[in-house]
Amino acid sequence: MNIIHRRAKLEDLKAIVSLLVDDKLGHTREQAGDEIAQEYLDAFAKIDSDSNQYLMVLENDGEVIGTCHLTLMPSLTFSGSTRLQIEAVRVNSNIRGQNLGQQMIKFAINWGKEHGATIIQLTTNKERPDALKFYEKLGFKASHEGMKLYLGQQ
Amino acid sequence: MNIIHRRAKLEDLKAIVSLLVDDKLGHTREQAGDEIAQEYLDAFAKIDSDSNQYLMVLENDGEVIGTCHLTLMPSLTFSGSTRLQIEAVRVNSNIRGQNLGQQMIKFAINWGKEHGATIIQLTTNKERPDALKFYEKLGFKASHEGMKLYLGQQ
Repeated sequence: MNIIHRRAKLEDLKAIVSLLVDDKLGHTREQAGDEIAQEYLDAFAKIDSDSNQYLMVLENDGEVIGTCHLTLMPSLTFSGSTRLQIEAVRVNSNIRGQNLGQQMIKFAINWGKEHGATIIQLTTNKERPDALKFYEKLGFKASHEGMKLYLGQQ
Repeated sequence: MNIIHRRAKLEDLKAIVSLLVDDKLGHTREQAGDEIAQEYLDAFAKIDSDSNQYLMVLENDGEVIGTCHLTLMPSLTFSGSTRLQIEAVRVNSNIRGQNLGQQMIKFAINWGKEHGATIIQLTTNKERPDALKFYEKLGFKASHEGMKLYLGQQ
């Protein structure tokens, strides 16, 4: 395999949404279909125009096989540290056991380092116990509770 | 009391750093002193120049009594939702029992709503059990593990 990562382009969006849909939790939250929903196009435009955002695609010989979304967040805490937030980590479920997820997170950490981040952070749903172990192997510690408030469901 | 919230100005930075220092976990991480460390000035400039960032101060009759840092994050997940990340929540430890923290988080949630956020998220250190209860009362659920990787400590 010949794996690279790069910034997502508009023409990758359908493949990215397919990865988001093809997920234990995501399949009830996302909109599949032949046409890309306008909400995804709008969100992509916002992400793509912001230099603090890196929507990564993992590519193997021209095929998108994974994605994650990185956000650089300047912060005052820890003496003015930059944080890197990792969201929306997905790898093609047909390609398992090849450490693609691990490779993608390492790319993410390195991208963060190159952009001055000293704290890498993410949350993982407690319904994904395997993901917790996966991130622990990469050096992350579950030192925090990850709390969410979904306004649409209020 | 006459509590308002507003975007932090450079002249608030010393008061904000004092709030970050005056904290169970923050006092070992932050740099107190008469002069504001350059790292804080640099971080403040980045935050202040980014329309996705809102460094909030809570003010009572001209005095800064609380702070939190909000970041809007466009995202593809949840059908292109905007997330609001809350970080660095601190209230003056001399002013307790007046629900200032609660009021500040409500301001934060409303600011997020006004800016299109439908997911409000934060992490809270497991060494702060009171904070967990505080956020649960405000409607947050600890559905996720909050994972951190501190690169400086690698």
